[in-house]
Amino acid sequence: MDDAGSTEDEGRRDGAVLVLRLGYDGTGFSGFAAQRPESHVRTVAGELEVALRTLLRRDVDITCAGRTDAGVHARSQYVSVPVTERERDWLGRQQGARRLLRSLNAVLPDDVVVSKVLRGAPGFSARFDAQSRTYRYRISRGEVPPLFCARWAWWQRAQEPLDVDAMRVAASHLVGEQDFRSFCKTSSAEGKPTGRFVRSITIGAEEQLGEELLTVEVVGNAFLHNMIRIMVGTLMEVGLGRRDPSWVGQVLEARDRTRAGGTAPACGLTFWDVSYPDGALDSW
Amino acid sequence: MDDAGSTEDEGRRDGAVLVLRLGYDGTGFSGFAAQRPESHVRTVAGELEVALRTLLRRDVDITCAGRTDAGVHARSQYVSVPVTERERDWLGRQQGARRLLRSLNAVLPDDVVVSKVLRGAPGFSARFDAQSRTYRYRISRGEVPPLFCARWAWWQRAQEPLDVDAMRVAASHLVGEQDFRSFCKTSSAEGKPTGRFVRSITIGAEEQLGEELLTVEVVGNAFLHNMIRIMVGTLMEVGLGRRDPSWVGQVLEARDRTRAGGTAPACGLTFWDVSYPDGALDSW
Repeated sequence: MDDAGSTEDEGRRDGAVLVLRLGYDGTGFSGFAAQRPESHVRTVAGELEVALRTLLRRDVDITCAGRTDAGVHARSQYVSVPVTERERDWLGRQQGARRLLRSLNAVLPDDVVVSKVLRGAPGFSARFDAQSRTYRYRISRGEVPPLFCARWAWWQRAQEPLDVDAMRVAASHLVGEQDFRSFCKTSSAEGKPTGRFVRSITIGAEEQLGEELLTVEVVGNAFLHNMIRIMVGTLMEVGLGRRDPSWVGQVLEARDRTRAGGTAPACGLTFWDVSYPDGALDSW
Repeated sequence: MDDAGSTEDEGRRDGAVLVLRLGYDGTGFSGFAAQRPESHVRTVAGELEVALRTLLRRDVDITCAGRTDAGVHARSQYVSVPVTERERDWLGRQQGARRLLRSLNAVLPDDVVVSKVLRGAPGFSARFDAQSRTYRYRISRGEVPPLFCARWAWWQRAQEPLDVDAMRVAASHLVGEQDFRSFCKTSSAEGKPTGRFVRSITIGAEEQLGEELLTVEVVGNAFLHNMIRIMVGTLMEVGLGRRDPSWVGQVLEARDRTRAGGTAPACGLTFWDVSYPDGALDSW
């Protein structure tokens, strides 16, 4: 066994876990998940692995809270990395975590920013310990395209008025423990469980960099492939008056992707936050 | 004379003026002003002229409220374009201006957005009729670089605390009718008048896309080359405790660029707004 192998084993035995909170601009990435080197695509995991390998001088195995698709952004993605005893001791020293934070941001490309270097409880997993995940979808409804928020919103030109109240009624059909097969990319749903729990869907407004945006924030335990984007595409059908709010309940019951609305563009979606149990994360 | 020449003459005689309010992301531009074709650089004026030539089917001569440098953004830049009687009549028809607005944004690249198509009073000039101009400079002072606002702010890493009150006192020295030679790029000041009137400098804070920013907003009649960026670089010297606020008064009196602070990066600067006399601009 080489060094990398033995240090990974130590990491597992010891249970010490490094956790990174990070954001990224998804525009230039083929999603979060690393892909085979021969595919020659840029991924967030690929960039993180290169940066961590450079700084820790070994191969790393990272686990994320939620795999985002190509073009989808993140404000608060979390990744966990088992660390060795020596790494744990180094991180626990004064300024250790702070120095890693600086080094990571110096090594990473500009479209990935690590905002926190945290300590996970022994054996912590960014994926399996997540209690809930929040996504935010932004829509620009201006007569002209957004400029400063162009990377972070879907421009849906204001040709017809949008009935936001009807969208809220429609969204209420999607809350709760339900089978969301109609809201999953068909190829990803085959033979897989499609029940999920959606805690809330909040439709609001915000002004960012002087531009008015409509926001759809969804909180749930976990999400199916394209689930939020299909939800947004479906709610827009109601908002634009093409369907009644109750139609969304029928779409859900049909368990058939073809019954739902279109898949809203990736650029409007941001992986917003993850909730972990108290005590799962701490500073070093 | 060809058609283009004769329509320009008509435009001058008639005095009808088309005014565009536009924003742009300066990142990909070598500034506003058009340059000679053989320089092969991308400019905002160059893009606007191509778009207007395509839609009006003639060469146009545009005048802007303020020429911004390479990398500097605009929220509300204004340009004026003398139009022919026929164009004026077309714009005055129902939906004429709205159709031009849509067509311009369809033809222009994504980093230039026309937000309004306005009618200028006869003979109106976006440059000479401007009463005051406002610029906003944004600074990110986080421990980690900004992500969502990276294009719109200068990241000045928070290594030392910033004394914003001292910056406000320092800024007060720069308000009023004064000779700003020390705050002008040397090569641009030679043999030219350097007196300008600064009405106000406001230092504040804002949160955009979840990121905390320090803002320096400057209102004045007109500005010298690099004036705002040198002001910001100079005020930062005071904020970081390297100089007393009164030093800024001495810099001003010296009338010598080498006495002032550095030139803050272009990316933090946005041409924010222009004020025109009542009645100078109207809808079509």
